Amino acid sequence: MFNLQAMFITFEGLDYSGKSTQAKLLSEYLDSIKVDNILLREPGGTKISEKIREIILDKEHLEMTPLTEFMLFSASRSQLVSQIIKPYLEKGSVVICDRYYDSSTAYQSYGGSLKLDEVLQVNEIATGGLIPDMTIFIDISPEDSFARSHRRVSKDRMERKDLKFFNNVYHGFKEIATNNPARFVIVNGLLTIPQIHSRITETVNKKLNL
Amino acid sequence: MFNLQAMFITFEGLDYSGKSTQAKLLSEYLDSIKVDNILLREPGGTKISEKIREIILDKEHLEMTPLTEFMLFSASRSQLVSQIIKPYLEKGSVVICDRYYDSSTAYQSYGGSLKLDEVLQVNEIATGGLIPDMTIFIDISPEDSFARSHRRVSKDRMERKDLKFFNNVYHGFKEIATNNPARFVIVNGLLTIPQIHSRITETVNKKLNL
Repeated sequence: MFNLQAMFITFEGLDYSGKSTQAKLLSEYLDSIKVDNILLREPGGTKISEKIREIILDKEHLEMTPLTEFMLFSASRSQLVSQIIKPYLEKGSVVICDRYYDSSTAYQSYGGSLKLDEVLQVNEIATGGLIPDMTIFIDISPEDSFARSHRRVSKDRMERKDLKFFNNVYHGFKEIATNNPARFVIVNGLLTIPQIHSRITETVNKKLNL
Repeated sequence: MFNLQAMFITFEGLDYSGKSTQAKLLSEYLDSIKVDNILLREPGGTKISEKIREIILDKEHLEMTPLTEFMLFSASRSQLVSQIIKPYLEKGSVVICDRYYDSSTAYQSYGGSLKLDEVLQVNEIATGGLIPDMTIFIDISPEDSFARSHRRVSKDRMERKDLKFFNNVYHGFKEIATNNPARFVIVNGLLTIPQIHSRITETVNKKLNL
């Protein structure tokens, strides 16, 4: 492996957008051209973050408030940034992260009940101000996300409320992208997997001067 | 039990100041005069907060950063405020809490490495802006705290570094008290337990118009 330059790339998008698949393919591509990289997912990625993830995902915790959940995501992210992301960037690696703080902003502020300025403040504090160099937003609509999910989940469980929530989240991602044009790359999520992968590698190669 | 007025009372101070003893005595006193009250401790007090407490206190988590620890305290506090403290205050109870966000400010900013403005911002966000009506600071010096701890801990383990840390924490508590004179009550922690208890009940009675 040789290092070209440190770069912090995050993937964002609705569920079923294919972003985890694309994050993995990008990591494999960088491996294939001998660029040192690490692939991470949120929430998780360190022993402590995984413990926090268990609390967040525990289905018995019905009483957990959105604010507590957000603080737990922020704690997990804080540990991941200090323990893994910053050290890897410092040694010149490419760090690929499947979701980062834009997901908190989109899901918990635009989609949820938390105040936008408070979420943005905590995002910045929890990460020590570490902003991604590039954020790849795989763009599929809430309707497409639902349609894809229904391959797995019975249609009866779809509720109007859910669609409204995901519309707000989607609108949130679009607005975050508009507010951060320098780092956001929007890719049409309805293209084929190889097409999307090729768009992403083109953009990353350019940024890495390959 | 009858309710007079909702009141949120927090206890702060260095370890071995006797604040947990005094918080308990105050709760028992309020019970004895039939004032509805609840006694809580931080971090903890809800099922979710106790789970978070386990992560914070797990001695295997040596790699936990001060920022992650602070975010976990904030998550625990957020849940405690929403699930217990606010509902009790809304039904007119006295809520007594053994430590609250001033401890985070004193230990993690004044004593630790976190920026004061960031700690204050997250404190406010995590609690939805819930400020105690009264904060009782049991005032013992770091030297006295150390002297009391040595009844239990071997003197060899005392380090200069620790004393400096506790001096900073102590200075922090004093400065927080100075900045919040309306809610802070400072009680000399070198008085006897009944003397301290009596000062506290006098002040609380006055505030509750008893």
